[in-house]
Amino acid sequence: MKTYCTLLISSLALACSVSFAQSKDGGPAPLQVPAKSLPVPGDVSPEMQKLIGAPPNPVWDVLWKTGEEWRAAANIQAAKTVAGLPAMRQRLHVKVQAGVIDGVKVYTVTPEVMPPGHRDKLLIHVHGGCYELFPGESGTSEAILMAGLEGYKVISVDYRMPPDAYFPAAVDDAMTVYRAVLRTTPARKVAVFGTSAGGALTLEMMLRAKQLGLPMPGAIAPGTPMADVTKTGDSFYTNEGVDNVLVSRDGFCDAATVVYAHGHDLRDPLLSPVYGDMHGFPPAILTTGTRDLLLSNTVRVHRKLRAAGVEAQLEVFEGQSHAQYQFDDRVPETREAFGEIAAFFDAHLGR
Amino acid sequence: MKTYCTLLISSLALACSVSFAQSKDGGPAPLQVPAKSLPVPGDVSPEMQKLIGAPPNPVWDVLWKTGEEWRAAANIQAAKTVAGLPAMRQRLHVKVQAGVIDGVKVYTVTPEVMPPGHRDKLLIHVHGGCYELFPGESGTSEAILMAGLEGYKVISVDYRMPPDAYFPAAVDDAMTVYRAVLRTTPARKVAVFGTSAGGALTLEMMLRAKQLGLPMPGAIAPGTPMADVTKTGDSFYTNEGVDNVLVSRDGFCDAATVVYAHGHDLRDPLLSPVYGDMHGFPPAILTTGTRDLLLSNTVRVHRKLRAAGVEAQLEVFEGQSHAQYQFDDRVPETREAFGEIAAFFDAHLGR
Repeated sequence: MKTYCTLLISSLALACSVSFAQSKDGGPAPLQVPAKSLPVPGDVSPEMQKLIGAPPNPVWDVLWKTGEEWRAAANIQAAKTVAGLPAMRQRLHVKVQAGVIDGVKVYTVTPEVMPPGHRDKLLIHVHGGCYELFPGESGTSEAILMAGLEGYKVISVDYRMPPDAYFPAAVDDAMTVYRAVLRTTPARKVAVFGTSAGGALTLEMMLRAKQLGLPMPGAIAPGTPMADVTKTGDSFYTNEGVDNVLVSRDGFCDAATVVYAHGHDLRDPLLSPVYGDMHGFPPAILTTGTRDLLLSNTVRVHRKLRAAGVEAQLEVFEGQSHAQYQFDDRVPETREAFGEIAAFFDAHLGR
Repeated sequence: MKTYCTLLISSLALACSVSFAQSKDGGPAPLQVPAKSLPVPGDVSPEMQKLIGAPPNPVWDVLWKTGEEWRAAANIQAAKTVAGLPAMRQRLHVKVQAGVIDGVKVYTVTPEVMPPGHRDKLLIHVHGGCYELFPGESGTSEAILMAGLEGYKVISVDYRMPPDAYFPAAVDDAMTVYRAVLRTTPARKVAVFGTSAGGALTLEMMLRAKQLGLPMPGAIAPGTPMADVTKTGDSFYTNEGVDNVLVSRDGFCDAATVVYAHGHDLRDPLLSPVYGDMHGFPPAILTTGTRDLLLSNTVRVHRKLRAAGVEAQLEVFEGQSHAQYQFDDRVPETREAFGEIAAFFDAHLGR
């Protein structure tokens, strides 16, 4: 038992000298939180309410163990995602062209209308999916969102995934595309963005660029990055069962990442970039939600960037679980999130 | 039952066409979250771990019903808080002088050392405490933190509270001080800051200044503002029992606010400023934590400011409950939080 009077100095507590239980190792005991029932928040759009009100991802606890198993699952999902893409491209008035850059497969997404100030800029997109999901065209939806909503040309990297290749194939392929882009576009006119594993890859690319002595892009937008895959981060606990997309750190996404890591130390900054040195990173905008299992991952990266003197802007959306800000271009909050990212890019690219 | 395929477009879910239960009114059913045990996060400072690891505020569910009862409770707490202030002032090298400005009691906090760029600037502090707590000198601790850590002169408003006066006495008194300050200091060299009810009061002052046609200050720092006291905001639910300071929306803090409101509509923007029109607000920096019961209040204000075209910066600290970033000047995260606020003020004041 121990007293805690530090709280007194400015807390809202009304009493002092209370004592608390300690755990066996002498540290404070875990906090016990009772079961609860969470209503769908009323202060978000009806469209977002549908996403937040959806039941927990029914396959959150599917834990495939090999690259082959993951690829089979990814292909089933990809076919369904791809079926929705033509209508999305039409809604957003973009063209998508498959190609290869220095051996890496890419999709170039071009909007019908591009503001004059965007015509000399280029965005590189690295898709999410726990380093295992969204192969091929199925990985282009976020690139289509950005190109269509904000009028930027986007190159989406279809990086290699298991079983074709394992760590560090994803970041290697993204870097190949980045180097190629630098041959034709000044780095300060290039931005890199992505969500989840794509957010982590965005940060991993910056660490790699520093190692290689390459210039930094003008800005980055790591969305709810898988910046720490070691189960460090308070929201892995507080938002367990609250996030209806990932549901739990002990679910599919980290199982997939372990397969990609292929025995490599998960604490390596090229897998958990929160442990990397972020000095010299370009201006960054980060996006997450209050129910996101990776809320802590995101705010920890934000704080780490700020501590390294980097201009970094944090956007946290009410009630959203992991990556829900980029699930559907027809949701008002999606347009708000991409509007913020584009405004940030507009303010920083080319400077 | 209903299908949800919107998720497919870019979600991490692996399956489609799942169906989900609906509530009786046809909307989605609430999400059931099982009981959980939250370890103290390992990725914060040892000093902050002590605050996060403290047991839930033992008096969170004390619900006094009159101004007189609240004042009695506030006086007991104030005596304990005041006992710690001399050591704090000494550690932080500040002097505190009681005074009266146009009939309103204030404390002027002056640091021993003030950077040259701060000598023509002035900060106004409005303390927190649910509009009932921290009367007199006990309300000065956050002002001492800011003055001592960041070298700014601060006027802390000892606004009237029940049973002496009820809504809108707090914002009236703060405005009296603001008007008086404007007689000697240009608005663009003035900042206003405060936490919790003080964060709400900061926002309420801006709404009032707009009504009165007064110039806006150069910047504001509403910390985890009580911006919505109507129990709207998802973290009132998700962080119930997770936040060890406020613990629950149905606890002491909102009971105190109801007494201050004195029958007035809680949805009035001068009690729930998230419902106010924030166009024309000055640049704002907001601070909260991932376990904060008012996380949603804070991010909703941030989004509302951004939607109104206001420059607004959001800082979310790992693992922290309500207002813990300003509990103790010796905690590294406290210094980080006030460092961010001061950097923001330095960037915006006097421009």
